[in-house]
Amino acid sequence: MTLNERAKYITDTLIDLATDLKISSSVSSDGTQLIDLGVTTTGGLEAGRLLAETCLAGLAHVSYGSAPSAFPTATAVQIDTDHPIRACMASQYAGWQLATDDYFGMGSGPMRAAAGKEKLFAEIGLTEKASHIVGVIESGQMPTASVCNLIADACAVTPDKLTLAYARTASLAGTVQVVARSLETALHKMHELGFDLARVQSGTGVAPLPPVAADDMSGIGRTNDAILYGGEVTIWVTGDDESIELMGSNIPSGASKDYGKPFIEIFKQYDQDFYKIDPHLFSPAVININNLETGRYFRFGQFNPAVLERSFGLHP
Amino acid sequence: MTLNERAKYITDTLIDLATDLKISSSVSSDGTQLIDLGVTTTGGLEAGRLLAETCLAGLAHVSYGSAPSAFPTATAVQIDTDHPIRACMASQYAGWQLATDDYFGMGSGPMRAAAGKEKLFAEIGLTEKASHIVGVIESGQMPTASVCNLIADACAVTPDKLTLAYARTASLAGTVQVVARSLETALHKMHELGFDLARVQSGTGVAPLPPVAADDMSGIGRTNDAILYGGEVTIWVTGDDESIELMGSNIPSGASKDYGKPFIEIFKQYDQDFYKIDPHLFSPAVININNLETGRYFRFGQFNPAVLERSFGLHP
Amino acid sequence: MTLNERAKYITDTLIDLATDLKISSSVSSDGTQLIDLGVTTTGGLEAGRLLAETCLAGLAHVSYGSAPSAFPTATAVQIDTDHPIRACMASQYAGWQLATDDYFGMGSGPMRAAAGKEKLFAEIGLTEKASHIVGVIESGQMPTASVCNLIADACAVTPDKLTLAYARTASLAGTVQVVARSLETALHKMHELGFDLARVQSGTGVAPLPPVAADDMSGIGRTNDAILYGGEVTIWVTGDDESIELMGSNIPSGASKDYGKPFIEIFKQYDQDFYKIDPHLFSPAVININNLETGRYFRFGQFNPAVLERSFGLHP
Repeated sequence: MTLNERAKYITDTLIDLATDLKISSSVSSDGTQLIDLGVTTTGGLEAGRLLAETCLAGLAHVSYGSAPSAFPTATAVQIDTDHPIRACMASQYAGWQLATDDYFGMGSGPMRAAAGKEKLFAEIGLTEKASHIVGVIESGQMPTASVCNLIADACAVTPDKLTLAYARTASLAGTVQVVARSLETALHKMHELGFDLARVQSGTGVAPLPPVAADDMSGIGRTNDAILYGGEVTIWVTGDDESIELMGSNIPSGASKDYGKPFIEIFKQYDQDFYKIDPHLFSPAVININNLETGRYFRFGQFNPAVLERSFGLHP
Repeated sequence: MTLNERAKYITDTLIDLATDLKISSSVSSDGTQLIDLGVTTTGGLEAGRLLAETCLAGLAHVSYGSAPSAFPTATAVQIDTDHPIRACMASQYAGWQLATDDYFGMGSGPMRAAAGKEKLFAEIGLTEKASHIVGVIESGQMPTASVCNLIADACAVTPDKLTLAYARTASLAGTVQVVARSLETALHKMHELGFDLARVQSGTGVAPLPPVAADDMSGIGRTNDAILYGGEVTIWVTGDDESIELMGSNIPSGASKDYGKPFIEIFKQYDQDFYKIDPHLFSPAVININNLETGRYFRFGQFNPAVLERSFGLHP
Repeated sequence: MTLNERAKYITDTLIDLATDLKISSSVSSDGTQLIDLGVTTTGGLEAGRLLAETCLAGLAHVSYGSAPSAFPTATAVQIDTDHPIRACMASQYAGWQLATDDYFGMGSGPMRAAAGKEKLFAEIGLTEKASHIVGVIESGQMPTASVCNLIADACAVTPDKLTLAYARTASLAGTVQVVARSLETALHKMHELGFDLARVQSGTGVAPLPPVAADDMSGIGRTNDAILYGGEVTIWVTGDDESIELMGSNIPSGASKDYGKPFIEIFKQYDQDFYKIDPHLFSPAVININNLETGRYFRFGQFNPAVLERSFGLHP
């Protein structure tokens, strides 16, 4: 089954259960199936969980658990997968910036593997052909005809063969789906550091569910902080230990020069220019690596509940 | 689907899986379907989980997780729902005192919404008509013909259109279903304090699973203490912050003048008269509130593991 | 349904989902169904979870949660069951040492109840006849014709009526299935101490998932340590309190004279002779016992995160 076929099982469920999930679905004039989980709808915890699993093309479980008692929120978002590269890199990573005259959003989900144009796909492979395309967009806007056409064209289908699920960051479902990216963030950072991702066999991730923000920029801040200062990832890998020893301490967010304060403050410090922020900041607080071949076990990084408290704006 | 229809899916499962769940089902001479999960049966953890979901009309997930290590029991009962008012107020709240010549029990579940006579329903709405009625009773007795008739009459059905699931507090399933009320307790207290419950969009709750008591009175003590001193609730709300700031510190159990010792001691202090106890005692130890509109995040209350230890009678 | 029938539902699922689970299935020349979850295959977290549930004959839930933050790994393996004796003793316990000219492995799963030859079955009963047999083997070898014949003979079936699932300890699935034995270990120790297991109605267990080792001996060391120094079990029992008070402090691993260092060091100290190790060492770090009849609640033992760190070889 392709990633897009797997994801479509979940989006079909979203449509069937729309009322219970407090979301809505509609079909555009061009025939694109649109599922609103948090732009004009309220959504909720279960909508967020299923949206995260759509991003992951159904190749990972997402569930709720308890956050460590040192953290300022009660709930944690957990992910586990035996297909970390397909689920997180080929699908979940928000690597497709969707911009048209009338639209802006961050695209993720298996549509990326069908488009296959990101530099990442040249490096990891894993592109696919699919007759029906499924994508997820983090945006405050309902997808317009222009962005649906852009995606359909890139994936070599007509717009009526496209399903898009979307939510703004500052919604409950949108917050959940971002915080489910703890593992993906670690893998992406390791890829940037030169680690061969084909070595990663399985992975888990957990991060505290932050309070939903009032605006998307604050939401991006809190969800990033949940991972940077409260996220913990474990991966099971093959291959040598030396590469892990060399690179390990650089994987957690703490290795970045920008580490140590809420993301929104870092963002303002760089005049709100995302691209000035140290890209090495984006990874979980803690990473555990178990080498299946040598049995070695490594742990790098540490939590920072104090920054989480500042970021989440705990009152009173 | 009505609340009663949703709950019936679960009670049908209880009947189908009765042997595996170590429970029993029977049909009264008047045709009422009776499901014993902990009066003459042993029941268990899964029976308790499904009984709790029956109380919640299938509109919440109930699951087991780990309790914080500071607590004297290992297991916690978690609930999450995107329909907190329908699940917890219109259904789960044990607001129907069932008393006849030969019966006493506390009624909960969607039968309450079909009867619709409690003052609460005048305030929150959400009554419903249903052709088949499902109720849950916390009682040491199997329902008698008189109580079945009382319920059927109140819900405008004949007794053969009624399904009742029941367990005593001092049973494993009965203990689980009470401890699954952490969120409900918070909502009920907020309603009493004047908070408009229509503002509450989603909620989670977690409380330690206390040891099952030998008698129902002790069971009521321990299950209350699990929530009062170990329960944590999170709700996502709309509306203003001022009402939360004004009321927030009054929501947790710690705001009550009766707070600070095991429930059973408070009960004895008031000559075993339930109605002399401060009604504001009944709420979780900690409540987190996230305002979806303003992004503000509030946390009120604190845990009290010392009282949990006394209540649970930890040996040696 | 027999234990073997229940387990076959799970092994049929393993076969259906083999690709997604990263495992493989084959049929031997004698017709035995073989499922490799971690000898020549990579397997994974979900394969391990389902392997553990196969061991337990489908009468327990196995799931992943968060380990306490004092522990060196992030993930914990949880089990809960309302059929502890059937699931853990009659099925999961690795009581069948499978040795032929060309094979060695530890046998568990419901095939043990069909063979019924262990002394344990004379004591607890619970043997069964089954037309199709399911077994689990912890071994670094694929089952040979000789061991398939040995098992089939012992269970009074032909080899084509046999399904065997297997994984080495030093695999991800193999590690998970051993660590899911926290509850079983407690019950077996209590049985050895003379506790009447028929009194145990329900049980839960949780233990940290250790890093997968490079070789099976190290894997046995780490998985044992996960339970001995990090495992916590809760059981709900009937009967008297005196037997619990008398025996309770002897149940946890801490009561053993060999307690206090990683298993592999103990093993070496006894010249690598398994049978010289104090058999009373094999039980969880902590056991909680709730007497359903008297309401009493007991807690014995304590965690030892320091030994877990040494055992898991935490780096850097």
